[in-house]
Amino acid sequence: MEGSQFLAAFAVLVLALAFSLAFADDPSPLQDLCVAMDDPKNAVFVNGKFSKNPNLTVANDFSFLGLNIPGNTGNQVGSNVTLVNVDKMPGLNTLGISLARLDFAPNAGLNPPHTHPRAIEILVVVEGTLYVGFVTSTPNRLITKVFYPGDVFVFPIGLIHFQFNVGKTNAVAFAGLSSQNPGAITIANALFASNPPINPDVLVKAFQLDKNVVNYLQKLFWESN
Amino acid sequence: MEGSQFLAAFAVLVLALAFSLAFADDPSPLQDLCVAMDDPKNAVFVNGKFSKNPNLTVANDFSFLGLNIPGNTGNQVGSNVTLVNVDKMPGLNTLGISLARLDFAPNAGLNPPHTHPRAIEILVVVEGTLYVGFVTSTPNRLITKVFYPGDVFVFPIGLIHFQFNVGKTNAVAFAGLSSQNPGAITIANALFASNPPINPDVLVKAFQLDKNVVNYLQKLFWESN
Amino acid sequence: MEGSQFLAAFAVLVLALAFSLAFADDPSPLQDLCVAMDDPKNAVFVNGKFSKNPNLTVANDFSFLGLNIPGNTGNQVGSNVTLVNVDKMPGLNTLGISLARLDFAPNAGLNPPHTHPRAIEILVVVEGTLYVGFVTSTPNRLITKVFYPGDVFVFPIGLIHFQFNVGKTNAVAFAGLSSQNPGAITIANALFASNPPINPDVLVKAFQLDKNVVNYLQKLFWESN
Amino acid sequence: MEGSQFLAAFAVLVLALAFSLAFADDPSPLQDLCVAMDDPKNAVFVNGKFSKNPNLTVANDFSFLGLNIPGNTGNQVGSNVTLVNVDKMPGLNTLGISLARLDFAPNAGLNPPHTHPRAIEILVVVEGTLYVGFVTSTPNRLITKVFYPGDVFVFPIGLIHFQFNVGKTNAVAFAGLSSQNPGAITIANALFASNPPINPDVLVKAFQLDKNVVNYLQKLFWESN
Amino acid sequence: MEGSQFLAAFAVLVLALAFSLAFADDPSPLQDLCVAMDDPKNAVFVNGKFSKNPNLTVANDFSFLGLNIPGNTGNQVGSNVTLVNVDKMPGLNTLGISLARLDFAPNAGLNPPHTHPRAIEILVVVEGTLYVGFVTSTPNRLITKVFYPGDVFVFPIGLIHFQFNVGKTNAVAFAGLSSQNPGAITIANALFASNPPINPDVLVKAFQLDKNVVNYLQKLFWESN
Amino acid sequence: MEGSQFLAAFAVLVLALAFSLAFADDPSPLQDLCVAMDDPKNAVFVNGKFSKNPNLTVANDFSFLGLNIPGNTGNQVGSNVTLVNVDKMPGLNTLGISLARLDFAPNAGLNPPHTHPRAIEILVVVEGTLYVGFVTSTPNRLITKVFYPGDVFVFPIGLIHFQFNVGKTNAVAFAGLSSQNPGAITIANALFASNPPINPDVLVKAFQLDKNVVNYLQKLFWESN
Repeated sequence: MEGSQFLAAFAVLVLALAFSLAFADDPSPLQDLCVAMDDPKNAVFVNGKFSKNPNLTVANDFSFLGLNIPGNTGNQVGSNVTLVNVDKMPGLNTLGISLARLDFAPNAGLNPPHTHPRAIEILVVVEGTLYVGFVTSTPNRLITKVFYPGDVFVFPIGLIHFQFNVGKTNAVAFAGLSSQNPGAITIANALFASNPPINPDVLVKAFQLDKNVVNYLQKLFWESN
Repeated sequence: MEGSQFLAAFAVLVLALAFSLAFADDPSPLQDLCVAMDDPKNAVFVNGKFSKNPNLTVANDFSFLGLNIPGNTGNQVGSNVTLVNVDKMPGLNTLGISLARLDFAPNAGLNPPHTHPRAIEILVVVEGTLYVGFVTSTPNRLITKVFYPGDVFVFPIGLIHFQFNVGKTNAVAFAGLSSQNPGAITIANALFASNPPINPDVLVKAFQLDKNVVNYLQKLFWESN
Repeated sequence: MEGSQFLAAFAVLVLALAFSLAFADDPSPLQDLCVAMDDPKNAVFVNGKFSKNPNLTVANDFSFLGLNIPGNTGNQVGSNVTLVNVDKMPGLNTLGISLARLDFAPNAGLNPPHTHPRAIEILVVVEGTLYVGFVTSTPNRLITKVFYPGDVFVFPIGLIHFQFNVGKTNAVAFAGLSSQNPGAITIANALFASNPPINPDVLVKAFQLDKNVVNYLQKLFWESN
Repeated sequence: MEGSQFLAAFAVLVLALAFSLAFADDPSPLQDLCVAMDDPKNAVFVNGKFSKNPNLTVANDFSFLGLNIPGNTGNQVGSNVTLVNVDKMPGLNTLGISLARLDFAPNAGLNPPHTHPRAIEILVVVEGTLYVGFVTSTPNRLITKVFYPGDVFVFPIGLIHFQFNVGKTNAVAFAGLSSQNPGAITIANALFASNPPINPDVLVKAFQLDKNVVNYLQKLFWESN
Repeated sequence: MEGSQFLAAFAVLVLALAFSLAFADDPSPLQDLCVAMDDPKNAVFVNGKFSKNPNLTVANDFSFLGLNIPGNTGNQVGSNVTLVNVDKMPGLNTLGISLARLDFAPNAGLNPPHTHPRAIEILVVVEGTLYVGFVTSTPNRLITKVFYPGDVFVFPIGLIHFQFNVGKTNAVAFAGLSSQNPGAITIANALFASNPPINPDVLVKAFQLDKNVVNYLQKLFWESN
Repeated sequence: MEGSQFLAAFAVLVLALAFSLAFADDPSPLQDLCVAMDDPKNAVFVNGKFSKNPNLTVANDFSFLGLNIPGNTGNQVGSNVTLVNVDKMPGLNTLGISLARLDFAPNAGLNPPHTHPRAIEILVVVEGTLYVGFVTSTPNRLITKVFYPGDVFVFPIGLIHFQFNVGKTNAVAFAGLSSQNPGAITIANALFASNPPINPDVLVKAFQLDKNVVNYLQKLFWESN
């Protein structure tokens, strides 16, 4: 191998690393800008994301286009969440916030019961009629209401919540979330569609279901929305 | 004074206190619910707000209605911000998030340069065309772009930013903010319309303006939007 | 009413208030000691708890006795959690930590799938054999293992997890939790036993269950462990 | 008792409470201003301090005068710390910062080994010559240097540190601390002068000292500086 | 290419990376020491700074010399800020604190209106006479006072503030700031000297200035102090 | 050197780097999993630890085995602490919690006075009789009590504390700590066994000891437990 070849390889490697390290963020920003970069091929990770040279950041790092386009609700639950998190908008890195568009099919489009392990959510309805609710931990009180365009609701951290289209038209909402990577745990999927499956005896006892029902549920297709 | 009178007064007092103490929140929730209560007449304050008995909370505590109604942009700057913070939605207490609707008059409606001392802001345009930007601290780079419906942008904490309607129609946006009480410092108002006024020599030197101009500016009417 | 009567009432009132205000804490301590006090009769709340005069604190404020006594596992799920949180040990106020003893009946005692909305949990098995696991959010991977005395496991914040006695003897574990008030959401109870109940259409669609099954489940008795 | 008497008493009570509640702060400010108030007679406490009505705050709330006056170093250790914390400057409430002036007598004035349980300290020498150091936890490395006017040093959180005047003149330093109530644990005093005293067997074994020496030390006078 | 050449290149690369990664810190330290290292040539960044091997840290990492030397105030505004932040003292990494010396020329030396997006500031005057102030967000109250040697003042996070020498001699102050990288936004510079410039229509409307004045201001030289 | 050799070296290098970067964590998790990796040979550090590819994590990353085995108390102080921190259980990375087993020899086994600079500790006695205590900062109050199996006690952050076996049998306790890397400063070791040693004049003055005693103490062997 020639020196020039090596230098080229060296350059590629350094470049690859500069990019591969492009993934680090933090709950509290320690500088004005800390824009995330794409995931490296050679697994190198930190809490959050590595970042781009602040001098090279551009407006597009802080932009995401297309939330005017309705999400596809032609799925099992009849809903779609388009989340603009740090994976979609690298400038969100370290900023602790994200934004989502929620679409619901007419007549029972459902964003099924779920939690965000790292975020609080505030939601404004812009179209349609939504029955929304969350359940407190102890005791299990359901806080619920039907919402119309212009109505705002908030879901406290970690509590199970849902939104359900009780109208005959599409429903649309926007939501702010208090993390650049809020996470979402769809309860039914986490319990009945985990990989590998949870020991069915656990689910039988926990949900007071017949073992056949649990076995049946664990074999179904569970679509993530 | 009769015992019964005293008991009534006592009840009023206890009730007044229960309410007067209704103002305390915190950046990290320490329980599921901590709904704020109205401001006491007899000044009693903590960092954030005192809270309501969690067992008495209702869905309305977590609701705000009316963001479908356009804000009135018939003012000096041609814009209006309707902020749903903890003062408007007591359930936001301790949750560290809020949501706003921004309206802009056609042809140059402006949300003038301002900062949020305690919040990051993520914004989605739902109608119209906005020229938006923020300026970094050192060096003073302007990160700016023109946005259309469905476009999302983020403003890092504490940086000066603005939104300007460069279209011929109304513009509307929704924004999530990472505090239940983000605060807003409209730069021009803080500098030229503070009470009492800043010593004009400071502004003359800082802004390289003629003293007459500073005096003139300090006498103008500055509308908060 | 006499002045002396009034003064007595006044004293009672001030005392009641001094106590009623005894409930305020915070994620980060701002002084050495901030011991919580009992809940006031006249609902006055802050985020966390009001606190006792630091000069009056005693060792008992920082003590809880009796975790050597096995919890009663004679219930629906065959398990018992004795949580020493700020309600049981007032000295935990502002300290952001708690400790629990977990008891499991032989042959399938189950601490059913649940989350802690405000805490990470680290657990050491001291007796018996436990099949434990948690499910990540996206994708839904189950991280699981069988544990014996002396084994330690950790459950990340907000993720669904469970412990299941797969041995023929009692099982016992101790757990540290990263909050003085971690909260616990037993998934099945939150979904099928909330008050008021969740609209069954939501559960039918979310869990792919027959409406009769959902109705049946919502009428069952769900014991909190 | 007359109604008017009652009303007067009522007013006094409400006023007393308004003041008694004047003590609450927090690590993260949730509004622009949250000025602490004096300690209530009827012990009512929260984490940090209750606060004054923000509309009534004045510049004096954010001021402390007199750090130009040398502290009195005529004591056992020959040093003096004047700490401007939230007790001295109520406007520091929720702001998470404080400032101190340190004075050292010539020839061996010592700010003895101590820790701040809630603060990092940054120090600038303005007069004299100081030998300063801190010890890391594991292993116990001493990081130390002699400092002259204009030199700056930092002490990480919770580590044992000291400053020692190795010059023949007075020494003076200013320090910033990252808490409005940093706390200070003078090691020797905490161990040998606690109230009640620590069981001497603990100190004999921990310090490899003769029991007579420990008994002798526990009877000495230990001055706080 | 020879093995030895490769090894040399390999060594250079590993060394380069060890250094290039020398930049990561965090608001809360997770170990005793986390000393920052110099900026890498091959842009690799995280939130804050990468750090040096803790075993190789030396006292100089925690030291900065020379704050006894007056800053040069021979500039447009007649003031100078020498900030000892993590770029100047690598040991500040993760420690969340910094320290500054402020110098003011006699007769109107001005530290012009500015904000710190990530820090609270506490200041002690050591020489001269300063008129200092900050403006709250809503309403825009100016909190202001004239300060003399030994006086201490605090500036809440994110609020616009300034210091102005109203005496006939030099003025000097020291300040503690609650971040290892507080940032500073000089308002006039951010608005009138950003790169690229803000659309002048925004400034005309926001500041109620004539377009000619804005154009004139945007062409002036704006010195950072 | 052949291309194939180079590629192999290249692969080794990339792998080495992937591993060498395996050290980054954070006080607040920003994703479900952030498992730490082993320390790199070529010193590369961040605050906390770099992490493993989340898709490659396994249950063992979240496990530690062997806390059923008594620690060896055959040492100077007659005690042993087995701490399961992020170095022992990589899955603790970013989770802010750890767990320890404490063993005490009969008749005066002592965990000598120490502090944790970054953690609060909650402890449950499972065997034996322990005299435990902590000392507050100002004034130096000792909060102390004798504990038996099943008793729980808490030690606030940064305060000096100890546990002493006052029974005639072994004593055992488990403790939860609020950091994945709490740190421990054994007071006597930090003061009398630091490397390099503290100037004895500092210790003479601080501890009111004869210089010969200090010299003697600094020459002794101090075992870490």
